[in-house]
Amino acid sequence: MKAFRYYGGNNMKLEDIPEPTPTSGQVKIKIRWCGICGSDVHEYKAGPLIIPVSKPHPLTGKMAPITGGHEFSGDVVEVGGDVKGVVVGDRVSVRPTRPCYKCHYCKKGMHIQCNMLGTIGLADDGGFAEYVVVPEDNVCKLPSEATYEMGAFAEPLATAVHAMNRGKMRPGAEVVVIGGGPIGLLTMQTALACGAAKVIVLEMLPQRIELAKKLGASMVLNPADGDPGKTIAKMTEGRRADIVFECAGPPQAMLSAVNVCSKGGTIVEVGVMTETCNFSFLNLLAREQSIITCQGYLQDEFATALSLLASGRVKCDEMISAKIKLDDILEKGIKELLGEKSKEHCKILVSP
Amino acid sequence: MKAFRYYGGNNMKLEDIPEPTPTSGQVKIKIRWCGICGSDVHEYKAGPLIIPVSKPHPLTGKMAPITGGHEFSGDVVEVGGDVKGVVVGDRVSVRPTRPCYKCHYCKKGMHIQCNMLGTIGLADDGGFAEYVVVPEDNVCKLPSEATYEMGAFAEPLATAVHAMNRGKMRPGAEVVVIGGGPIGLLTMQTALACGAAKVIVLEMLPQRIELAKKLGASMVLNPADGDPGKTIAKMTEGRRADIVFECAGPPQAMLSAVNVCSKGGTIVEVGVMTETCNFSFLNLLAREQSIITCQGYLQDEFATALSLLASGRVKCDEMISAKIKLDDILEKGIKELLGEKSKEHCKILVSP
Repeated sequence: MKAFRYYGGNNMKLEDIPEPTPTSGQVKIKIRWCGICGSDVHEYKAGPLIIPVSKPHPLTGKMAPITGGHEFSGDVVEVGGDVKGVVVGDRVSVRPTRPCYKCHYCKKGMHIQCNMLGTIGLADDGGFAEYVVVPEDNVCKLPSEATYEMGAFAEPLATAVHAMNRGKMRPGAEVVVIGGGPIGLLTMQTALACGAAKVIVLEMLPQRIELAKKLGASMVLNPADGDPGKTIAKMTEGRRADIVFECAGPPQAMLSAVNVCSKGGTIVEVGVMTETCNFSFLNLLAREQSIITCQGYLQDEFATALSLLASGRVKCDEMISAKIKLDDILEKGIKELLGEKSKEHCKILVSP
Repeated sequence: MKAFRYYGGNNMKLEDIPEPTPTSGQVKIKIRWCGICGSDVHEYKAGPLIIPVSKPHPLTGKMAPITGGHEFSGDVVEVGGDVKGVVVGDRVSVRPTRPCYKCHYCKKGMHIQCNMLGTIGLADDGGFAEYVVVPEDNVCKLPSEATYEMGAFAEPLATAVHAMNRGKMRPGAEVVVIGGGPIGLLTMQTALACGAAKVIVLEMLPQRIELAKKLGASMVLNPADGDPGKTIAKMTEGRRADIVFECAGPPQAMLSAVNVCSKGGTIVEVGVMTETCNFSFLNLLAREQSIITCQGYLQDEFATALSLLASGRVKCDEMISAKIKLDDILEKGIKELLGEKSKEHCKILVSP
């Protein structure tokens, strides 16, 4: 079968490899759609980052070459022994995180902090292939209303659900989302689905501004047009936002977050801020604001994401900027997301 | 009567002014002890910061000259009309914060964020005097077991109580306190009183190291002796601290806080970090840590502080490094806390 495999760094290639066979407790899935995530692009541009290249991953036992892709859906075509909750023909999505269930963090329910966490598509073979074999524990059945496309969006949406829980999202909150990329747009929709009074998106790229409006943003402000803090203050009797989700990543975005946040407000850091930030903690303290970081998602948040998609409260179809074939993943997928054309893209889905 | 009054900046002087008289709803107190706070010293060194010098404070109607001092206790010697809960002879401490009770934040119970907040001793006449007149609302009766010294410690201790609530302190938590100054030592004791498994203090000054040990710190680490993160990791099966209270203030302290904090842990910022910090939010996110800032205290936390002192769960006597007369407040109080001798001081109490 075809599989797009990571050897580390920008050595990623489409290869022909044997179809995998499920052993005890495993499920074989025929892939329908697999989304390209920012972390796939980062592995190509700056990797190896998460992919184990020098020794096998302690939990999965795998190392490069590894088939990429961790946002995928498909049909169950075969099950191994001892598989009890999944049958051939089930339409499924896959939660890619594999915790050890034994460490201090797993025992506290913080599986995303697991000392051995392995992620399918990064530390184990993933969804950029015709077939994949995964543990039954990672399989989530699609609700009947959910499309395969929704199944591919459950993983990034689970991140947005986690951000709500981490930031103690509450009905009536005035919310700002910084950045209108895939995670920002999913976070914006999820905040509305959780009862936000208003969700204001800060974004500079014209295509993303339009998309944010189309997907229901209460307002989109372009920081290039003037201080968004002043505009938001006017809309909130001087208070500004109760919760700010920073989904962009550059250091300036964190300074903006402080600026648009109310006294006693919460900044949820979702963006991957690779540069350091020259930051005034006194400014934060003077307004008693908090910064809550947000990494991945907890297990039940993946099911919540599927439910939000299936019920139509979060929409993904408008976010799909291209549907491509696995044969084209490098040229029309990863390379486009690294180049000038990335400004026009939101989410690219890949099908074998 | 004698009163030590702030005119702004380092223009602070002992003057003879008329004794104040309580009007309706007010209580006149003969001062027993008033502590010198870091903010009193900051007003002298870098002020005016909080003290209104150009126009009257919107809530209190007062402006410089203002009598300083906001950590005080004394005896009620006279009450105005309509005072119902306080009588002459009551032994009392004074919660110095005066909120408006009407703004958005007051209505949400976040009085410390009140848009008009005025603090007795900074925006209204305070405790560096023979007598003070305050609203009945600010008067807290001393429990019978509480000394007047304890009454003067209730205010800084309320800050430590607020830090516990903000940081969601819980029994069994592994705690680190960075900085062994007055707030750090009160925070350390309060964390133990709240059921911390261990409280480790990070401090470099010999006198403070000794005092932290005397007051019950589980361990005191001097960062000059080696990476405290490694030592704490060894003590916690590699996990490090669940909650870190940063009570020192220099930017390096925030980097230390990240270093000694566990995955998913909480950093509570109590210190006043006047310099900016070159900070990696990616490091914070990679371990899903949070930074919760902490300003002042809520109203019920002041009563909690008095109860912790009266019951002996937090000790203050060992923290009093000098008891001085009001006549000596500038030379033996504020100036000593600004000079080389500050290293030997913890809390200075002033009595008229």
